Formats: sequence, structure tokens, C-alpha cells
Amino acid sequence: MSMEKITVVKVGGKIVEDEQSLNQLLTDFNKIEGNKILVHGGGRSATKLAERLGVETKMVDGRRITDDAMLEVVTMVYGGLVNKRIVAALQARSVNALGMTGADMNILLSDKRPVKTVDYGWVGDVKQANGGALAKLINEGVVPVIAPLTHDGMGHILNTNADTMAGETAKALAEHFEVTLVYCFEKEGVLRDENDDNSVIPEITRELYASLKEDGIVVGGMIPKLDNSFATLDAGVKEVIITKASNLCDLTRGTHVK
Amino acid sequence: MSMEKITVVKVGGKIVEDEQSLNQLLTDFNKIEGNKILVHGGGRSATKLAERLGVETKMVDGRRITDDAMLEVVTMVYGGLVNKRIVAALQARSVNALGMTGADMNILLSDKRPVKTVDYGWVGDVKQANGGALAKLINEGVVPVIAPLTHDGMGHILNTNADTMAGETAKALAEHFEVTLVYCFEKEGVLRDENDDNSVIPEITRELYASLKEDGIVVGGMIPKLDNSFATLDAGVKEVIITKASNLCDLTRGTHVK
Repeated sequence: MSMEKITVVKVGGKIVEDEQSLNQLLTDFNKIEGNKILVHGGGRSATKLAERLGVETKMVDGRRITDDAMLEVVTMVYGGLVNKRIVAALQARSVNALGMTGADMNILLSDKRPVKTVDYGWVGDVKQANGGALAKLINEGVVPVIAPLTHDGMGHILNTNADTMAGETAKALAEHFEVTLVYCFEKEGVLRDENDDNSVIPEITRELYASLKEDGIVVGGMIPKLDNSFATLDAGVKEVIITKASNLCDLTRGTHVK
Repeated sequence: MSMEKITVVKVGGKIVEDEQSLNQLLTDFNKIEGNKILVHGGGRSATKLAERLGVETKMVDGRRITDDAMLEVVTMVYGGLVNKRIVAALQARSVNALGMTGADMNILLSDKRPVKTVDYGWVGDVKQANGGALAKLINEGVVPVIAPLTHDGMGHILNTNADTMAGETAKALAEHFEVTLVYCFEKEGVLRDENDDNSVIPEITRELYASLKEDGIVVGGMIPKLDNSFATLDAGVKEVIITKASNLCDLTRGTHVK
């Protein structure tokens, strides 16, 4: 018996916090056939709420330092406002959405990041994903909507990178489903020329990736994204697609990592 | 075959927003054997956040007016901060908690309250509870933790009374389980003398309730609570217990409505 398919979609905070782009995203997400999961970010809206509350946003190398006050903010914004808005909007489209953090049903357990040169505070690095619990829900027709928060199993919520959560979720589901992982971002895909949206590289293999790095075509934030993508393939995920959110209804577009 | 039992516990916001009383509550809740659900309020913490954000809290007859800004606040506080803290704390006690609002898996669908003399804003009156979806989760060993928010099926979150949500949840589960509904509040139970915690009325039947009302012993906010309790009994709930949260580990105490 061949395994059922599932599509794990990760979208950034930028798309989900604007009502118009969120509605478009959910309409497109709704068109994806079969089993699916949405993992969302929520960065800017947390910064906005923090500002209104007089909580200082501290970043080191683009990563948020999560002290007690900031943990409250991200728990409210990611786990409450953003997550529940998406759930209600999907239910209005007859998608049986269930909002979750990693703490809910213990689906994603993390270690609090150890303090080395930087103390990131209440930030988690995923150590275990509970694919079995998610698979049961999915087999009942539930569509999990996952906020970028995990827990440490000792009662603490941890702020967690949404890309990593999507990757770990996809890997944990590979035992139960044929998994396609879709990273949505602001560009059409991995570009040969970052200023030319027509220069999408349609397929990246390990060999091509090595030469793209050597030639300086793949640089910066795209390197961890692609490293992460190959790691999920190693763990049994069938395909990773890096594409624009507006391409969700046509997954033949974008960059296919194989 | 006799039906399995379930205990539906409702606790107010006051208990869950203080770390010490929350921890005591969850330790006691953990001791309840068998299937269980926790429905929580969250009143004061929403008011506090609203204050910090400069959002005005408007109350009419003790009920919160929920405009756009206040809806954001309650979605963040009830659905995010309070709910996820409870979930993480229960997971730390090896309880397989799943935080939900009425929108999640469409478990509680409401109508936005019609505007009569007062416009309550984004406030919902429950019209349908999905006992089947909850029963499936419970039969898998999941412990739902429900925040006082529902949805209208058209994409809107609605602020909803936690007592009502607990009652509607209990009623919907009566088809699947033998349900005990426990309302926790600050007193030992329904008291003959409100200043004497030793004057708990151990059992209230319909007949006794009628005479207690006549004699002016049951007054004020206790009347809707008891009316609500008898309505759930009419709908198949086996027993309603009104008690102090600290009595959760001994449900022979408090007032038993039968």
C-alpha cells in the first residue's frame, strides 16, 4: 500500500498579519488537495505589540532575544492573535483547522537554547516532534495550524523558529505520509539573479547546490534554508519547494529541492 | 455497555492568572481520574493588558463590551497567554493537554449577539457544540483546555462567557459520556449564609431551589448559575457541582445540583 500524501506549508509572519494577503493565502491553501498542515510565523506583529507595551525588541544577528516580557508578547501574538485568526478564517472556508503550539498534545518538544556568547532567553531548539499524534489528527481530517512556539516539557513555552518547526514537523510525518514541504517567502523561488524574478532555478540537487554556493549565487539567508531542506530530504521528506506564497495554487512553480 | 465518565471543570480567570493558585489548581485537576476537560476564564488579565495598551474597558451589567480593539486583547490573552500557559503546565504534569477555542475543530459555534438596547460588540452566544469532535479527542486520551472564545463560522472570533461554554460543552458530551460538570468559584459552594463558609448546602434539587429563591437565600449571580445548571441536567448531564477550586481533589464537597 502506498502512503498518503501530505503538504506542509510554512508561511512567514508578513503574509499572515496583513488581512488581504492572509485571505489570499488561505484561499490558495484551501485549494491544496488532500492532507495538509500550515506552519506560520508572526514576527512583525510581535514587534508592534511589544512597542505598544513598551517592551524593548532586542535582536542579535536577526534573532529575537526572548526575555520574560517578550515571551508574554510572542505567546499572545503567535499563539493567540495570529493563530486564532487563521483558524477562524479557515473554518469559514470549511477547512477543519486546529490551532496548535508545540505544547499542545506535546507535538514539538524543545530544549531551551543554552547560553554561549549570547543569552537568547526563552528560545527553543526542537529536539522531538510527535509525528504519531499529528498523523492521528490528520487521518481524522483535521488541518493543524501551528504557531512558532514549543515547550520544554517542564511548563515553559519557548519561542521557536517557524522554518525549523516546519522542517521538524515534515521530518516527523515522513514515517506516516509522503511529505512535500513548501517554504513560502517573498520571491518566486531561489533566483540566479536576486533582482530578476524570472531567474528562478526550477530544481536544485545536492550537486547543483554545491556549485551554486561555490559560484556565489546562493548566499546569505538562503544557505540555512537550503541546508535545512536537504536535511529534511535526508530524513525521508520527498520534496521541498521554495516559492512565493501566491504560487501555492500551482506548486509546479518555484524551486524544487530534490 | 455503560458509558464512560467525564468531568468538565470550569475555573475562573482569577485562579488561572495567579501562578501559585494556577499550579495548585492543575495539581488538583491532574488528580481527577478518567476523562476530563478544563474550561477557563481570563477576565482580569484581559483588563490589565487593555490598560497597558490604552484600550478602554467598558462594562454593562458586569459584561464586557468587545469592540475591535478589545477583541484583539481577549484573543491574545484568553487564546494565547492564559490558554498556552495552562497547556504547558499540564504537559509538565504528563497530562496530554490540547488548548482550543470554539473555532478550533469548530467545537463551539456562536451567533454574534444581536444589538438590542446594548451593542456588546464581538460577543457570541453559543448555538452549537460539536460533541462528536470532542469525544473523539477524549477517546484518544487528549484533555481539551478550552478558552472563552468561539467563532461565528464566517471568520470572526467571538468573546464568550466561560460558564456558558462549560455548560454547552457538558451538554454536547452527554450523548457520549456520563458527564459531571464542576463550576469552581471562590466559595465552598452555595451557602445558606454568604458570610459563613460552613453553611454549604450539600445538595440542591429543583424543589429546594424554588424554596431557596422564595426565601431570598439564593440571590444575584447565583441564580443564572443554578438556572444554567438545571438546564444542563435537562439536557442529559448527570450532575453539576458548585465548589471551591481547592476542593477539586474531593468532589464529595461543595453543592451538588441534581
